[in-house]
Amino acid sequence: MTSVPSIDPRTGETTGIVAEETTPEQVDRICSAALAAAGPLEELGRAARASLLDDLAGALETNRERIVEVADRETALGAGRLHGELTRTCYQLRLFGEVLRDGGYLEATIDHAGDTPMGPRPDLRRMLVPIGPVAVFGASNFPLAFSVPGGDTASALAAGSPVVLKAHHSHPATSQLCYEIMAGAARRSGAPDGTLGIVHGLEAGAGLVAHPAIRAVGFTGSPGGAKALLAIIEKRPEPIPFYGELSSLNPVVVTPAAAADRGERIGADFAASFTLGAGQFCTKPGLLLVPAGPDGDRVVTAVQEAISGLEPMTMLNAGIAAAYQQGTDALRAALTASPADGSLPSGGTSRPGRAAPYVFLATAGDLPPEATGECFGPVTVIARWADEAELFAAVDELPSSLTATVHRGPGETVLPAELARRFRPHTGRLVFDGYPTGVAVSWAQHHGGPWPATNSQHTSVGTSAIRRFLRPVTWQNAPADLLPPELRDEYDSLPRRVDGVFHPKI
Amino acid sequence: MTSVPSIDPRTGETTGIVAEETTPEQVDRICSAALAAAGPLEELGRAARASLLDDLAGALETNRERIVEVADRETALGAGRLHGELTRTCYQLRLFGEVLRDGGYLEATIDHAGDTPMGPRPDLRRMLVPIGPVAVFGASNFPLAFSVPGGDTASALAAGSPVVLKAHHSHPATSQLCYEIMAGAARRSGAPDGTLGIVHGLEAGAGLVAHPAIRAVGFTGSPGGAKALLAIIEKRPEPIPFYGELSSLNPVVVTPAAAADRGERIGADFAASFTLGAGQFCTKPGLLLVPAGPDGDRVVTAVQEAISGLEPMTMLNAGIAAAYQQGTDALRAALTASPADGSLPSGGTSRPGRAAPYVFLATAGDLPPEATGECFGPVTVIARWADEAELFAAVDELPSSLTATVHRGPGETVLPAELARRFRPHTGRLVFDGYPTGVAVSWAQHHGGPWPATNSQHTSVGTSAIRRFLRPVTWQNAPADLLPPELRDEYDSLPRRVDGVFHPKI
Repeated sequence: MTSVPSIDPRTGETTGIVAEETTPEQVDRICSAALAAAGPLEELGRAARASLLDDLAGALETNRERIVEVADRETALGAGRLHGELTRTCYQLRLFGEVLRDGGYLEATIDHAGDTPMGPRPDLRRMLVPIGPVAVFGASNFPLAFSVPGGDTASALAAGSPVVLKAHHSHPATSQLCYEIMAGAARRSGAPDGTLGIVHGLEAGAGLVAHPAIRAVGFTGSPGGAKALLAIIEKRPEPIPFYGELSSLNPVVVTPAAAADRGERIGADFAASFTLGAGQFCTKPGLLLVPAGPDGDRVVTAVQEAISGLEPMTMLNAGIAAAYQQGTDALRAALTASPADGSLPSGGTSRPGRAAPYVFLATAGDLPPEATGECFGPVTVIARWADEAELFAAVDELPSSLTATVHRGPGETVLPAELARRFRPHTGRLVFDGYPTGVAVSWAQHHGGPWPATNSQHTSVGTSAIRRFLRPVTWQNAPADLLPPELRDEYDSLPRRVDGVFHPKI
Repeated sequence: MTSVPSIDPRTGETTGIVAEETTPEQVDRICSAALAAAGPLEELGRAARASLLDDLAGALETNRERIVEVADRETALGAGRLHGELTRTCYQLRLFGEVLRDGGYLEATIDHAGDTPMGPRPDLRRMLVPIGPVAVFGASNFPLAFSVPGGDTASALAAGSPVVLKAHHSHPATSQLCYEIMAGAARRSGAPDGTLGIVHGLEAGAGLVAHPAIRAVGFTGSPGGAKALLAIIEKRPEPIPFYGELSSLNPVVVTPAAAADRGERIGADFAASFTLGAGQFCTKPGLLLVPAGPDGDRVVTAVQEAISGLEPMTMLNAGIAAAYQQGTDALRAALTASPADGSLPSGGTSRPGRAAPYVFLATAGDLPPEATGECFGPVTVIARWADEAELFAAVDELPSSLTATVHRGPGETVLPAELARRFRPHTGRLVFDGYPTGVAVSWAQHHGGPWPATNSQHTSVGTSAIRRFLRPVTWQNAPADLLPPELRDEYDSLPRRVDGVFHPKI
């Protein structure tokens, strides 16, 4: 048996043993319990599942202080950030309650029997149904918002799919604590046993993805981790959907008009964005494209000044700190050879477990591959461009990202429109005059993008995240008794499309 | 250069040379033209694309006699069936015109800036945008409904995605003719050059899937073909979505009450369903689960009688005919060892290019693997079950399918409900008192299911097929000038969700 330790990243010391790694037999038992819960969880119905989500939010809030204390010890993210994360997760749980009560997410559609140019058509009724048990892999960088509690868990439970969680080794105590709080609340709320399960350990995670009871996987992590799990999925007799949120550069362009209008402020705000949470965000802006010339210089100077006083930052775990060191070493090697100024290290130097913020300078027309890949941590590359041709050529070569941002001058539209046109095929969110960090949870949010941002078209933030854990089924000529209530003629408390015409909720 | 011949399956003779196989350089040129067309095709707007779809339907109808003549010579499907297919495709093209005019498919969503428990939220606006050029692989078995003209092409063009077609080698002349008719109509309708392209040859198909301009693949074919294309996709720097509709058993259960009520009629209708189109349908019912006893015997006898007078049927091509021979040989070998009666060959015997219809008899409690996989052609297995325990155990072991069907007695609900409960996780369409063949095109249709039925949750028939060729984008704090019209405040001619509240079309 291998023990799962809780490690304080501020000291590198083990503060306790959380659990033993989950054995294959235990994985099988947990997945089977999830499968057994799938029917009863769906049968609870939308109103009861909405209450369940409210109850989970309530339980997390009741235990807020304890959760934040344990999470801060394991992640060093600080109480302020962690309170914010928990607030976000509770908001998200309650928002999915609204989604359930609204019912539009079911896409309920009824076509009564009728004649068509191809002859008679049978009665057809379609809606989305839960996909079945879902494996959710906690992310290291959001212990309370993309981990045991978080968007994947909330959206899967809302869909009616039981969730088996893979605890992240970077915060196992936080994971176990949140799991126990949530599982207890679920039980008291009337959810079936098996609605929530948890496993610890790398092999247990692999076993989860291979288990026949698991019908989809939600994952936030590296492309390498995703490919390892996808290889397991491809060996299943029945491959299943894998929703990975993987890697993102998040380029930001400053137009000349924006630089002239507010160069210093953009530089300072950009520095705050790329160093937020020690740069450990999927939406961290990793590339800033700034025009050559004095206005652009003011942007660059402001970024450099903003980080020059910053102390090295404690990273989430030793592995991430080591990868950051490697990534910044590679950037330094690549950009030394460029015609630009090379790197500007911040005031502090890196030491084990900590990361000094860095800014590297480059030329947009001569970006090395190191400058266009994600480097997780408080580092960014500022690339200068001499004219629009150089800017567009650089933009067209960038990998796809979760976000792309344009800072424009007051009332400026021509260049921003052209940049949006070029970015749009390669991004999931177009941000204007803002920063990509801070992903609001709402109906209109989308958090996704072509590979390597994600491996699917779906979102992992916002209400449409529920769509990942549902699948369509059509009933043909079913007697009313055998239809789900939402597809019976007389049901009128959700929006439906009937015979091609959309009927909003009455 | 390798020539692409048109072969008459009734004689096995080559009737002409359609084209040369498309070279890598030509593939590149065609894909680049598709990419260049993507922006202008989207900018046409929904109304103009709806007109384009209407014009394609009109052009196909204008050339109906010629198309059916060429298709019949290449497929031997008969004029009646082919006229029906063309009617279906034209109906589908026009239905997607309605989808475009309706606009709900865009999922337009607006959240105005506001305060939340997590602090201020920026203005967020989300809708679906075209995914970019799509490769569509024509299927052998639907030369006019899942090939150059058909559901994938119609839904991709509706989405605003240019289409590069891979002509099926089984009907290249039909493919080329339809392509020319449609490309001409598209040009006259004002669609940009590159909106439609076509390639011939296996290597050209592989090149298409690998080409960076292609952003999604629509495929109807075998799991083996799908896996070969998926392997190409995995080697791309940016993997893309692959929508495969692959293999389906389509089980049909007859309850004792149904057998008692109308056993003969069910048997005769079932025989018509599994031999329709020489059994060359993805929805062909490959397994009939019939209760033991005299009522069930009447079902079996009716099936046997219905096919005993049938002549061997001309298959779509020599490869399919050979695979059918292999599949039925394997069934005969597997079921000889079973305690049941073995196979009952029909009146005729198989000869090259033709297939005699077959029925094999088996026991539900002892089904060999050969009996639960798809065998493409006019063959089915009838499995008898002694009690509900044996039936349920057999149902629970079946692979996932596009459809599952239950024939019930008048007013019967208990056993049908239990069967629906067991089938639902493993099927995309639950059919009652009917047959799976004949897939109506409508708003509520779904044609999909877990692997091996498809490799995605999406449908390839019905209006939601458009969803495959769209991806979400969110605009954050975008000035009105930079928003798509559908996301501007004042736009009111499509259904939208604004600040969480659904507003139907005005």
